[in-house]
Amino acid sequence: MNRQQLFEQIRKKRSFLCVGLDTDIKKIPDHLLEASDPVFTFNKEIIDTTAPYSVAYKPNLAFYESLGAAGWASLEKTVMYLRSKYPDIFLIADAKRGDIGNTSNLYARAFFEKLRFDAVTVAPYMGEDSVKPFLDYEGKWVVLLALTSNKGASDFQFLKDGTTGNFLFEQVLKTSQNWGNKENMMYVVGATKAEKLKEVRALVPDHFLLVPGVGAQGGSLEEVAENGLNRQCGLLVNSSRGIIYASSESDFARKAGEAANNIQKEMEILLKRAGLLRKK
Amino acid sequence: MNRQQLFEQIRKKRSFLCVGLDTDIKKIPDHLLEASDPVFTFNKEIIDTTAPYSVAYKPNLAFYESLGAAGWASLEKTVMYLRSKYPDIFLIADAKRGDIGNTSNLYARAFFEKLRFDAVTVAPYMGEDSVKPFLDYEGKWVVLLALTSNKGASDFQFLKDGTTGNFLFEQVLKTSQNWGNKENMMYVVGATKAEKLKEVRALVPDHFLLVPGVGAQGGSLEEVAENGLNRQCGLLVNSSRGIIYASSESDFARKAGEAANNIQKEMEILLKRAGLLRKK
Repeated sequence: MNRQQLFEQIRKKRSFLCVGLDTDIKKIPDHLLEASDPVFTFNKEIIDTTAPYSVAYKPNLAFYESLGAAGWASLEKTVMYLRSKYPDIFLIADAKRGDIGNTSNLYARAFFEKLRFDAVTVAPYMGEDSVKPFLDYEGKWVVLLALTSNKGASDFQFLKDGTTGNFLFEQVLKTSQNWGNKENMMYVVGATKAEKLKEVRALVPDHFLLVPGVGAQGGSLEEVAENGLNRQCGLLVNSSRGIIYASSESDFARKAGEAANNIQKEMEILLKRAGLLRKK
Repeated sequence: MNRQQLFEQIRKKRSFLCVGLDTDIKKIPDHLLEASDPVFTFNKEIIDTTAPYSVAYKPNLAFYESLGAAGWASLEKTVMYLRSKYPDIFLIADAKRGDIGNTSNLYARAFFEKLRFDAVTVAPYMGEDSVKPFLDYEGKWVVLLALTSNKGASDFQFLKDGTTGNFLFEQVLKTSQNWGNKENMMYVVGATKAEKLKEVRALVPDHFLLVPGVGAQGGSLEEVAENGLNRQCGLLVNSSRGIIYASSESDFARKAGEAANNIQKEMEILLKRAGLLRKK
């Protein structure tokens, strides 16, 4: 899916919501544990109720890997289900990979060929050759970690380069623009640092930003929109726990749909205010 | 396995070799492709011929993930085989993970509970809470990326902090010593930067270093030993392609054993020279 197509989906659904499928077998409703594949069954029901309000899904690989080969099988089924039933959904593997070129090639093969994701999150620490192999795939995306939403983000991301005066995360934003462009690269920028979003937006005016940290981690959607929206929206805001664990009872899927719908309605207002929607 | 036990294994085998199981299905001998699990069969044969000369094995996760759920099954079988037949081997998951605390918990579960690795490689970009969950496991290790062996290492790892005058990789070495210690933390330091190894060793005199980049990537074992050995060896030097692809014919396992033995013999000389071996 290219940038223009993603923007069209955002306009059509009046939403820039990404649903994080951080599916923890220890947190899903008891009655699902009898299913042959509880994780996939949970995901499938969540997807069916939330898809009308979402433009993207983002399975977090850790949750599947923690179940070993069986977890990967659940992930494969989830991706295939999304691909066949909701072909217009943008699919992000939240994997935070990054290794020497030779190895990143294999990760790219894993996520783009074997699993048919549109995008994968990548860590920048190892530099250009750890990122490039993902960019070699036509029509696929790298979502590069820039400024993350967690407490530890301050440990290194705000280290200030003596020569340029840039913080490390700014250096990542600048340097990586030599590797890819707004058509194949997005950045992770945490919502818990909304005041920083404006500075990030100045450095990458046209790129899409993937914003975690709204909801459970405390970020405000309105602030994110104010500081982050660009002429083609340019934002995918992720919510995981607030949606998929909206209820732990048998009504979990319906409640997840309602939670997604509530966010979508807020996003519609923000998109309208920014003049990004066509008149109905 | 704790640090003292690892050192004892090194003395016993007169080797600090780690064999990288970067098993690419596209590179293994044709006759193995008829096996029910070619990747596991390849690994098993490689392990049996190289185990006398190695103290550690390091499967690179990318190679297994590129085969999806089937690849994870091969990995699980490889780990189980090593655990049951060679219980004194140190087992490193080369995964380069790192995410917000909540998610790193799940990765730790994947590699330490589900797969019973001794150690996992972790990327430092997201800071303390992305690393800590791995350190919470008694008797397990984090191998933190510090200075990697690839070309892209220079993109960010040599960014110089204006306040402290430290390079980013030095800052990672220093800051992370507040999170763990020499009993639960090692560092990745590439062999292609042997002159830097001495500086790293000055910052972390007692820690083990995992050194990739000897062989195919061009680093010299002798230089690594000169700059990196400490009083309890403190080095695990990894070789992947030079061993596991020593031959692509039916004699691949025997040739891998010979390649590992050749490295072990060189290591024995270096250990002896450093006064680290008991008299036979």
